[in-house]
Amino acid sequence: MRTIQFSKGQGTGNDFVIILDRPGMLNLSAGQVQWLCDRRFGVGGDGLMRATRAGAIEDWTGDPDQWFMDYRNADGSIAEMCGNGLRVFGEYLSEQGLITGHEVDVATRAGVKHVVVHGNGMVTADVGTAAARPDQVSVTLDGRRWPATPVDVGNPHAVVLLGPEDDLDSLPVDSQPGWEPEEAFSHGVNIEFVDLVEPGHVRMRVHERGVGETLSCGTGTVAVAVAMTGHTGHQGPWTVDVPGGRVTVEKAADHYRLTGPAVIQVRGQVNEPDVG
Amino acid sequence: MRTIQFSKGQGTGNDFVIILDRPGMLNLSAGQVQWLCDRRFGVGGDGLMRATRAGAIEDWTGDPDQWFMDYRNADGSIAEMCGNGLRVFGEYLSEQGLITGHEVDVATRAGVKHVVVHGNGMVTADVGTAAARPDQVSVTLDGRRWPATPVDVGNPHAVVLLGPEDDLDSLPVDSQPGWEPEEAFSHGVNIEFVDLVEPGHVRMRVHERGVGETLSCGTGTVAVAVAMTGHTGHQGPWTVDVPGGRVTVEKAADHYRLTGPAVIQVRGQVNEPDVG
Repeated sequence: MRTIQFSKGQGTGNDFVIILDRPGMLNLSAGQVQWLCDRRFGVGGDGLMRATRAGAIEDWTGDPDQWFMDYRNADGSIAEMCGNGLRVFGEYLSEQGLITGHEVDVATRAGVKHVVVHGNGMVTADVGTAAARPDQVSVTLDGRRWPATPVDVGNPHAVVLLGPEDDLDSLPVDSQPGWEPEEAFSHGVNIEFVDLVEPGHVRMRVHERGVGETLSCGTGTVAVAVAMTGHTGHQGPWTVDVPGGRVTVEKAADHYRLTGPAVIQVRGQVNEPDVG
Repeated sequence: MRTIQFSKGQGTGNDFVIILDRPGMLNLSAGQVQWLCDRRFGVGGDGLMRATRAGAIEDWTGDPDQWFMDYRNADGSIAEMCGNGLRVFGEYLSEQGLITGHEVDVATRAGVKHVVVHGNGMVTADVGTAAARPDQVSVTLDGRRWPATPVDVGNPHAVVLLGPEDDLDSLPVDSQPGWEPEEAFSHGVNIEFVDLVEPGHVRMRVHERGVGETLSCGTGTVAVAVAMTGHTGHQGPWTVDVPGGRVTVEKAADHYRLTGPAVIQVRGQVNEPDVG
């Protein structure tokens, strides 16, 4: 039975099992990823990130010596990208001494992402372009209805700006919201509920599609910055308070940069799980 | 900043952070226990067990050289005992080479408990005496009502034997059940819902007081064996299937012994949490 060395890290409460596999020899089955991400029977995490050489990834056509973030969801499926995960991945590479200096280009299935590790627990990740869609949608939750701004950040979002009669803290965000027209998001949508504190500062809660309420959603904070720039005219930066902490979203040229905390809190080992 | 070495283990899905502190030098604050048990920001567990020398515990009048299971709930409060925790604690002492042979008397705040580590992943813990109370109570859940058997296992339980018209798997056990008369359990009660497969074999789900539905409850499995012996006349042993796995409950003289799996799945280290 092989022993697997791992680290566990989190960014604004989004947590990950991280495994170093530079040569790309560790082929984890979906069952093994499920076990490692299981909070009671395994290690526990929202997802698993394998740090490997890009050249070890099939069909990778870029620089083979870049670090590749091989992200798996807790159910074992492959995901292209994760904004909070990217920050934690950068912090991991830095604290393990796997990069020199404070900057690294991380290869992902959604392309190469630039990450800056500030060295004070804060990390900035370039999450790419994002744009509001022109169509009109509405969101319903708990018998209430709001207009919403659809925003594409590589994945789909709908941003609801709450009114003065709404109370963000008491909204049942874990319940499944509805939306209209249904065909606006035929594969589901992540929905952000926003309390505008002042131009440049919001509080938000998020319902992630297929998951429910989460402590944080990196692309969701970007979607909120895009929508709130439209509502207020304030170009940014935007301070976004999520239940798991605080991040900042800035636009530089046509890219959005997400800055927030990232911590590697556990180093450990497990026996390779003997599951399918 | 001190580094803390820990293990993480589980028994039928009840999981624990375990820290070896033979000399009794590690005084963890409630905030530090909360952090260590936090599943996203810390390590993650239903509770924390410190393995220390009984003589290091204030007011301990027994053998000072026994191993003491210093159990803390995830909120940092002190608990007297935990049946599943006791199995995991025994497995931990054995696999760390901290005991010789397969048997150990573990000191707890509820007295000394005998534990047998079988060496095949199964552990037997003597959880002491248990008895049904003679009074009549009823339990309500989701608009339905059943008679229930009150059982005292050091902590209070109410055991509901479901009828042929009930479906254990679809019961909303995470919802708060009610009971009558209210004064039967003035400090709350753990409630077990039981599907009798045959005499000697049950399936159960449990609502733990103050927590909600859990994957397993060691004292709850004992309460079920006591109540089902009363219903069926079958003296035992009882095989009890809980959502987190399978345990066996046997009576020897007037004590109940709980046998089930215990696994130490993670070894790791964290920096001592800098919290109050």
